[in-house]
Amino acid sequence: MTGGTLYGVGLGPGAQDLLSVRADRLVRGARHVAFFRKAGRPGQARSIVDGMLAQGAQEIAMEYPVTTEIPLGDPRYNEILSAFYEDCTTRLRALIEAGEDVIVLCEGDPFFYGSFMHLYERLKGEIDVQVVPAITGMSAAWTATGVPVTWGDDVLVVLMGTLPEDELTARMEEADALVVMKIGRNIDKVRRALRAAGKYDAAWLVEFAAMPGQTVQRLKDVDGKPTPYFSIVIVHGHGRRP
Amino acid sequence: MTGGTLYGVGLGPGAQDLLSVRADRLVRGARHVAFFRKAGRPGQARSIVDGMLAQGAQEIAMEYPVTTEIPLGDPRYNEILSAFYEDCTTRLRALIEAGEDVIVLCEGDPFFYGSFMHLYERLKGEIDVQVVPAITGMSAAWTATGVPVTWGDDVLVVLMGTLPEDELTARMEEADALVVMKIGRNIDKVRRALRAAGKYDAAWLVEFAAMPGQTVQRLKDVDGKPTPYFSIVIVHGHGRRP
Repeated sequence: MTGGTLYGVGLGPGAQDLLSVRADRLVRGARHVAFFRKAGRPGQARSIVDGMLAQGAQEIAMEYPVTTEIPLGDPRYNEILSAFYEDCTTRLRALIEAGEDVIVLCEGDPFFYGSFMHLYERLKGEIDVQVVPAITGMSAAWTATGVPVTWGDDVLVVLMGTLPEDELTARMEEADALVVMKIGRNIDKVRRALRAAGKYDAAWLVEFAAMPGQTVQRLKDVDGKPTPYFSIVIVHGHGRRP
Repeated sequence: MTGGTLYGVGLGPGAQDLLSVRADRLVRGARHVAFFRKAGRPGQARSIVDGMLAQGAQEIAMEYPVTTEIPLGDPRYNEILSAFYEDCTTRLRALIEAGEDVIVLCEGDPFFYGSFMHLYERLKGEIDVQVVPAITGMSAAWTATGVPVTWGDDVLVVLMGTLPEDELTARMEEADALVVMKIGRNIDKVRRALRAAGKYDAAWLVEFAAMPGQTVQRLKDVDGKPTPYFSIVIVHGHGRRP
């Protein structure tokens, strides 16, 4: 392969000093910095690195054509997103082929439910791609609760709040320790599933983990309040502990 | 609370530049550095920070009285380990009460199946404790495979190889994406469970992720070879992707 390198750089949960040393160096040294965002917003990944970019760094904002305006199940959703990722890929490929290195800023860990994966799958094998793992949002969330999440042989299950309610309930029942992400507008469904699985009273809600405005509460104590997108529900395991 | 602070510092999977910036600063600035290890060994956590400790830093090696010599199910195992953690706690509490800050080096993320949790549970509420989350070994492992681990609504299940075979099989069947840790001497059982769950051909074995000697192979291609303790099995999810 010739040309530059595409770096998928995990930024972690949101605090600048929770970037890895490797990510910190890549971000500060980058000439081309790409990131996803919703149109009209600064973008969470870009916000995390505020003040860190080198003077003269070129910023490449990749703006989602839709986020929640079209339901996930609508065939247009996949079509529109697919065309969008193709377009992003074309822009990045042109830079890489011209010999430039480009970093893509990724919230959390790039290979863990990340948007970067859609670029990666289209470009791997074709250009040099390096991925830098990072601290996940869920690690920051369980750390924020002040309670260890998994002990001994505990089974950890990670669920998306977008799953159907009966599937959420069934998976919650089987888990020793539990993480639920993509909460937002799914919070009422997640609450019902937790109740049905007998885990509601043990559940914690962490908003903006490791970010300004972090809150940590028992889920049952915040009934009725809206929950932001960056919310994670945690149920801790209780496995073997000497 | 008076006295110093106890820091549980997650070091991540093993590469020095995958420490967080916060962990890097704490490690380099520490006057008292505690870590677990097997007697007679340098200790994995201590090895990760080789060359990083300040001159004159006091090292506190906490040596496990047993590791695998006594089966987990034996009541003596819990008794011996419990006495060991009490002893470690006493040593650390004395320093903290004398006004010193102490960092405990933790492989991976401290609250995710970590030994630090046993100190934390005995000392929290009594002294000031700060926990620094970190990149998990499993993040390094799935990154090393070069294949994203979870897409869309994939359910991720994390299992310990120490679980009974029928439970491993049942949990593997339900998972979209799968991580199995604590492999070592459980590898044959893990292989049988993966076969029974129909996931054997899709499984990868990552040894020493993000460490010198890292290997990444399809599990089926390494049948019969011994697997080190720092091995992780990964099965990738195949969820929604535009």
